[in-house]
Amino acid sequence: MMSWIAELKAILGDEDVIADPERLLAYECDGLSLHKHLPSAVIFPESAEEVARAVKVLARHRVPFLARGAGTGLSGGAVAVQGGVIFELARMNRILAIDYENQLAVVEPGVINLALTRAVAEAGYFYAPDPSSQMACTLGGNVAENAGGPHCLKYGMTGHHVLGLEVVLPDGTIVMLGGHGADAVGYDLLGLFIGSEGTFGIATKITVRLMRQPQAVKTLLADFLSVEDASRAVSAIIAAGILPSALEMMDRATIEAVEASVYAAGLPTDAAAVLIIEVDGLEASVVYEVERVVEICRAHGARQVVVARDEAERARLWAGRKGAFGALGRISPDLMVQDAVIPRSKLPEVLPEIYRIAARYGLRMANVFHAGDGNLHPNICFDGRDPEEVERVKAACREIMELCVRVGGALTGEHGIGLDKIAYMPLVFTEDDLEAMARVRAVFDPEGLCNPGKVLPVRRCRAF
Amino acid sequence: MMSWIAELKAILGDEDVIADPERLLAYECDGLSLHKHLPSAVIFPESAEEVARAVKVLARHRVPFLARGAGTGLSGGAVAVQGGVIFELARMNRILAIDYENQLAVVEPGVINLALTRAVAEAGYFYAPDPSSQMACTLGGNVAENAGGPHCLKYGMTGHHVLGLEVVLPDGTIVMLGGHGADAVGYDLLGLFIGSEGTFGIATKITVRLMRQPQAVKTLLADFLSVEDASRAVSAIIAAGILPSALEMMDRATIEAVEASVYAAGLPTDAAAVLIIEVDGLEASVVYEVERVVEICRAHGARQVVVARDEAERARLWAGRKGAFGALGRISPDLMVQDAVIPRSKLPEVLPEIYRIAARYGLRMANVFHAGDGNLHPNICFDGRDPEEVERVKAACREIMELCVRVGGALTGEHGIGLDKIAYMPLVFTEDDLEAMARVRAVFDPEGLCNPGKVLPVRRCRAF
Repeated sequence: MMSWIAELKAILGDEDVIADPERLLAYECDGLSLHKHLPSAVIFPESAEEVARAVKVLARHRVPFLARGAGTGLSGGAVAVQGGVIFELARMNRILAIDYENQLAVVEPGVINLALTRAVAEAGYFYAPDPSSQMACTLGGNVAENAGGPHCLKYGMTGHHVLGLEVVLPDGTIVMLGGHGADAVGYDLLGLFIGSEGTFGIATKITVRLMRQPQAVKTLLADFLSVEDASRAVSAIIAAGILPSALEMMDRATIEAVEASVYAAGLPTDAAAVLIIEVDGLEASVVYEVERVVEICRAHGARQVVVARDEAERARLWAGRKGAFGALGRISPDLMVQDAVIPRSKLPEVLPEIYRIAARYGLRMANVFHAGDGNLHPNICFDGRDPEEVERVKAACREIMELCVRVGGALTGEHGIGLDKIAYMPLVFTEDDLEAMARVRAVFDPEGLCNPGKVLPVRRCRAF
Repeated sequence: MMSWIAELKAILGDEDVIADPERLLAYECDGLSLHKHLPSAVIFPESAEEVARAVKVLARHRVPFLARGAGTGLSGGAVAVQGGVIFELARMNRILAIDYENQLAVVEPGVINLALTRAVAEAGYFYAPDPSSQMACTLGGNVAENAGGPHCLKYGMTGHHVLGLEVVLPDGTIVMLGGHGADAVGYDLLGLFIGSEGTFGIATKITVRLMRQPQAVKTLLADFLSVEDASRAVSAIIAAGILPSALEMMDRATIEAVEASVYAAGLPTDAAAVLIIEVDGLEASVVYEVERVVEICRAHGARQVVVARDEAERARLWAGRKGAFGALGRISPDLMVQDAVIPRSKLPEVLPEIYRIAARYGLRMANVFHAGDGNLHPNICFDGRDPEEVERVKAACREIMELCVRVGGALTGEHGIGLDKIAYMPLVFTEDDLEAMARVRAVFDPEGLCNPGKVLPVRRCRAF
């Protein structure tokens, strides 16, 4: 009997199957460097058929496997925790169809998020979900994690913009999910697949909704002398019935890192926090909303509120915001980007407590996040070579998670559970809940070969 | 051993367990009179605990069961096709909590859709999904069918507005789905449950999103001398980047029925079709959008476009639209309300073909539907006592469904598959697709007792 690696080479060609440990090193972790595991091999399929044939080989040999896009994920979701084969989908990067009349596009999973928006911009359209990593991350990865981004406050997550999928199931069969119309008919297996973090199969084609560019966009920068004031302004804007297209907060530690980096956006380094607030829509409504947002920020203690004068100034603010993680990554060997959701109204209470937790563990904390939907990203700068510091990071993360759950929050807003947060699942889910999830997973992947060790506590994954 | 009926009486009291065939007659069908099946019993639980205890009794005796709200469904979803027990949830009709700060409410499943909007109207809020039956239908039924309504064009379906559920599973255990934050953590079992048509369990508490009332609303009536012109106006409005909160079409047969009924709204009975177009949002944007909509309708052949002058006139238009099914029901013994989705751009091609199909079968056809999202409701007036006419209705429905699928549409937009459309499932789904759905269903309901004979072809339901 041929070895599975020989079989993969027969399907993909020798060049497209990597098993040399040195070359595999590049695939030992994703954007979260805390978790490192070497895969047994990495392959580069170029079509759904190649994916399906390779999956069949691995199913037969009982070798675990998982898909990977750009590896920008932040929950350890694309890490081969039990060894096995990584399907690197970067070469499946064609935009297959753009249909402006019905406002949709069909893409392969390796298409970069921003590349799709660029491809349709001239015609007046955009693809709405915009993770900070949108210059690098792939739409396939976005589907796996149900990715968000600053503009999801108004426009919704990836799941709201995916109309259909072609999927290779863990036994190698190819099925279509959704794609027949706006709404699910029968059970919503499309919705179930989105955000399942690669544990139900590998998406090989994605049909997404395209949005019309708004008539007008204005971006504001408001600066505050306390994070509590900034938090109250966030709630007040939403309570006034305004739904900004983005409502982001950056604290002083983040501002300082950004201003010291190539992403410098002219942010006030003496502010305790800034809000970046964007409103879009019809010209007339944007004018009205800008006025109201300025008033509300002032009434909640903003020192200054400025409106970006032109597209260049607006782009600079967003480069600063989206470059924040990179800027923070620069100032220490490692960066732990956390992700949790709390009710928006709890921001003034939870943020100070997060700083206190970090201080108690002697850790450097920086917060930059989607304030409008209560989606926190507490970031911890640390040195992964210091095992004692790593332990403190883990302990602080657990306390932060427990805090968020205590106020009615959730374990993740957009980065997924992956490997990193499995241990927290029992904070929110009962044994019955987890059991139900494991049973649903077993429907798709009875052999437990598809991205094992993610989402659900490991003992369960092994049970299936 | 006690009979199951005696056990149910012990839990609920004698009064709340009906088994008298004459009283059961009221429960032999839902809003679609084509399918009639007598249940073995109807019970009236008043709490999640009573639901759970009753489900456990039936699971033990292997008696099928299903939940029912107001019985306004239009796909035969709440019909006891294999006999068994109907859980009538009308008494579980309390609004348990309203939280304006976080913009949500917690309700029991028997709460009437419109009752929730009325309860929060004074405070400036509303519940967005508004089926035509909203004066009677229950939120539990809305969850089961992932119900829509005219305003779902802008605001989304029931699934977009449900944040969490308490559910009694088919074995009688009570679990919570979602409700921990804006986004699903782990697998999206909440999304999977919504729209599963009562086949995964019984929802006993529902957490829904409340929306702020818009600052301004304007409702327009545009009348056309051909349905094709009206259809093209629909596409042109959306293509212009305007997203009306509602964009409805009514054809001449519907207009005539409405104007002859108590819902008379002053519609022009000589028009081939009217559009009811509602725009909402900030005052300034509404003014702009009304102007653009008037221009576009005129450019596409509208004879007249009028804007409702006041709330009374607006309410009259909506009463006409929402009363259309009732008005059509008046003019013949029976009414078949069909439901399908097609790409919006196909309206000018598909609508004339639907009239031709009806004419070929000698049937009276009236169309009243959510044109903006391509969600058709072809209605056939017929006499259910004439078996030959019933056969023609069924044959015409099948042809209409085949037509919609052929142009890239879906079998249902908002009414569900239920009993009525099971036979059409193979038009869109492969054997593998249906098998995957049956396996997911078996996770929740391995014994096949929970609303059997719905959604999936019967042989499959029986297999599990």
